[in-house]
Amino acid sequence: MTYDPKTFKALTYYDLLPRFRDGTDNPRAYLERAIETIAAREPVVKAFAHLNEAGARAAADASSARWKAGKPLSPIDGMPVAIKDLLETKDMPTEMNCEAFRGNFPKRDNAAVWALRQAGAVVFGKAVTAELGGTQPGPTTNPWDPARTPGGSSSGSAAAIAARMVPAALGTQVGGSVIRPAAYCGTLALKPTQGGINRGERQTTSQSTTGVHAGSIEDLWQVAIEIARRCGGDPGRPGLIGPQSPPAAVKPERLIVLETEGWADLDAPSKTAFGMLLDQLRSAGITLLGREDHPWIEALEQAVSKGRATCNAVTHWENRWYQRNLLDQFPNGLSERAKNTLAKAEAMKVEDYRAALMERAAAQHRHAAIAPLADAAITLSCPGPAPLWAGDTPGKPLAPRPTGDFVFNAPSSMLFAPALTMPLLSVGGLPVGVQLMGQQHEDARITALARWMLGSVGAVITR
Amino acid sequence: MTYDPKTFKALTYYDLLPRFRDGTDNPRAYLERAIETIAAREPVVKAFAHLNEAGARAAADASSARWKAGKPLSPIDGMPVAIKDLLETKDMPTEMNCEAFRGNFPKRDNAAVWALRQAGAVVFGKAVTAELGGTQPGPTTNPWDPARTPGGSSSGSAAAIAARMVPAALGTQVGGSVIRPAAYCGTLALKPTQGGINRGERQTTSQSTTGVHAGSIEDLWQVAIEIARRCGGDPGRPGLIGPQSPPAAVKPERLIVLETEGWADLDAPSKTAFGMLLDQLRSAGITLLGREDHPWIEALEQAVSKGRATCNAVTHWENRWYQRNLLDQFPNGLSERAKNTLAKAEAMKVEDYRAALMERAAAQHRHAAIAPLADAAITLSCPGPAPLWAGDTPGKPLAPRPTGDFVFNAPSSMLFAPALTMPLLSVGGLPVGVQLMGQQHEDARITALARWMLGSVGAVITR
Repeated sequence: MTYDPKTFKALTYYDLLPRFRDGTDNPRAYLERAIETIAAREPVVKAFAHLNEAGARAAADASSARWKAGKPLSPIDGMPVAIKDLLETKDMPTEMNCEAFRGNFPKRDNAAVWALRQAGAVVFGKAVTAELGGTQPGPTTNPWDPARTPGGSSSGSAAAIAARMVPAALGTQVGGSVIRPAAYCGTLALKPTQGGINRGERQTTSQSTTGVHAGSIEDLWQVAIEIARRCGGDPGRPGLIGPQSPPAAVKPERLIVLETEGWADLDAPSKTAFGMLLDQLRSAGITLLGREDHPWIEALEQAVSKGRATCNAVTHWENRWYQRNLLDQFPNGLSERAKNTLAKAEAMKVEDYRAALMERAAAQHRHAAIAPLADAAITLSCPGPAPLWAGDTPGKPLAPRPTGDFVFNAPSSMLFAPALTMPLLSVGGLPVGVQLMGQQHEDARITALARWMLGSVGAVITR
Repeated sequence: MTYDPKTFKALTYYDLLPRFRDGTDNPRAYLERAIETIAAREPVVKAFAHLNEAGARAAADASSARWKAGKPLSPIDGMPVAIKDLLETKDMPTEMNCEAFRGNFPKRDNAAVWALRQAGAVVFGKAVTAELGGTQPGPTTNPWDPARTPGGSSSGSAAAIAARMVPAALGTQVGGSVIRPAAYCGTLALKPTQGGINRGERQTTSQSTTGVHAGSIEDLWQVAIEIARRCGGDPGRPGLIGPQSPPAAVKPERLIVLETEGWADLDAPSKTAFGMLLDQLRSAGITLLGREDHPWIEALEQAVSKGRATCNAVTHWENRWYQRNLLDQFPNGLSERAKNTLAKAEAMKVEDYRAALMERAAAQHRHAAIAPLADAAITLSCPGPAPLWAGDTPGKPLAPRPTGDFVFNAPSSMLFAPALTMPLLSVGGLPVGVQLMGQQHEDARITALARWMLGSVGAVITR
């Protein structure tokens, strides 16, 4: 299947609400259509680790009754939502694509899952994650080419949107785990400001953020805000703040074009496509600023120029004690890839971690400094189309990045900045995402800017 | 038993290291003496929820062998340490004094427990906590009067020190759960700067802090720093920083006397005793400043004048989703007291939580402002001696604060400030603690000041 951003329409929910109100459609019927799509595509895409069709049907029936009575709990009442299999769900196992968690079934809801149910959403299935949110891939394939990775670690969440199985899904990002798979699959995703959505039981890394994958900007925002108003953000954080319905489109006046560490390795067709998109923005009268235009932009570029290493140092240390516990308890419970990461973590001293925190904090200061210069920053969401992935070769060293490179995602992760990826490029018939990044707590602002871009800027197609 | 701070000697460890080195004593023998004390006093004190004597003996033997070989892992190698039963331990259940967790036995170590084992410490028993770290008391009694509460929620941790069962114990504080029980039991405790010691799996409240209870300032510091150098602080925080051995005593030049919300309700004998202690400090040439001496001190007093309400709003909201899950899963799994707290939490909106966060942040700014005015702040650690507690009366409303009032502890909790309680007062034959509070990350500084006070200021006894 060739990806054509001009013709592809993902599954949406917001536009059906009038039909739910007038009774010409209902959430149960919506769910059945989703189940049909899953039946058709799941054998190849493999987006789900678990499905709870019976529970979903019961929840959809209850929602249908509420719409019929004119008393929906929220605009996402009845929406089928997939949950990344790192997050606990009281009615499905949480196995994290990790041998050590095989059969793990805590009868609890993650805070965001709890909030979704409060809003009437239909918690439908557990979407495949890379092992423990790391880099060991699950079985999911890219919906546009089964020989390619869907990206990770929120592999199933992004693939389920691209395969039109659900209109929204939850993912989580520490380095690039929300934005990258969405970019490779040609879908929308929001990685909110750090702490924007309560992570519930998953608080043990300082950069991890719950994000939303969706087929439309309207559903994307609505899901995020319905969660945040019910369970808030992470402990100690105000959480996502913004309007109760999707913010109206806002045309940017000025955007900062960030190269990041990824620019040097970017393939030529993707660079060409991104350049064509920037030309369209200039033609629309938007001022674009780069590292050569202001010393503070240059300073930020330098501050994120080793973003991957900083993110890895922070995250490896933070997972160290937890994964050591796991390995002690389940000596065969982790992949070789995860064991290698743990070995790196265990070679660290607390001083190494503190040094990485200092790098991160300094970069955040530099990011705050550029706030007055433009409305937001724009950059790619991934270094080209999704790479091919056929598994590791026995007897050979493990492939370094089987779910792709997070080089364009490390900046927003380490800056705690909101990032939104838009499916605006097609390179060689495959999606490549473009990312808007705002200042902390500007989630609604970048959503408004993204809405303008999605509505007013034509997608770019290169070979 | 009448508490006499001039004659009471808690159990210590640091002073036996020369004897471990020369072979005239060893950790296994030390452990056996601790076990004897526990056998004698536990029937009344009830400090422990679980004991693992076999595991402790094996660990103590291994430690004894290391000392004999001249290769201890750290200065706390072989030290028996009690662990509050909120923190996971791979070799003992973690039941949190909560019906819903009866039989809960995750085979994992909390980060600080893991670090203690790395340092060679003997993880000995699980100390009783109030239910889920809240206010529903466990069975523990005050070692100085079994008719009184030991305080909470780290009830067993403080009582085990006061009963000379162990030289150190881990506790946790959200509102007053480390400092208050230590103050009521006449022992030392450090509630570090927020995030100073990695809380491991317990990250879901923004004020919770792992603290150390100990019988001596030397063991107190050594335990804290040995943990922090191995597992660091909470994710995203630098963690406790300071010397690798207890800081030398430092005489303060200036101290700020904080009244806090507790002053109005303080009983007369405790006020008298505290006044006598302040007189001694003045006599020693230390300048004492109060709210009338500087407008910034007055501003801080006002900012913490509703500390209990702010702490409760923050913590109730943060526990809301988690405790609702628990109650849904175990309808009889929570006490009436805990259910009442949950009902208050569920009446909150996210805006109430955000307002409490704003109050807290504003208070932290005011606290930072007073940094140049003095070396630290001094106040009481509890509003008088431990109250009597004989259980709730059936048919009557639940007693509001069965483990005592946290009114003097809310400030350091909401300010994220390090606090250290010292057993310097005896009122009516019972202990009343005095607290030093520093700026964030000044844990070593207040430990040095406390060391001077403990060595140079006589304890005060009033009837």
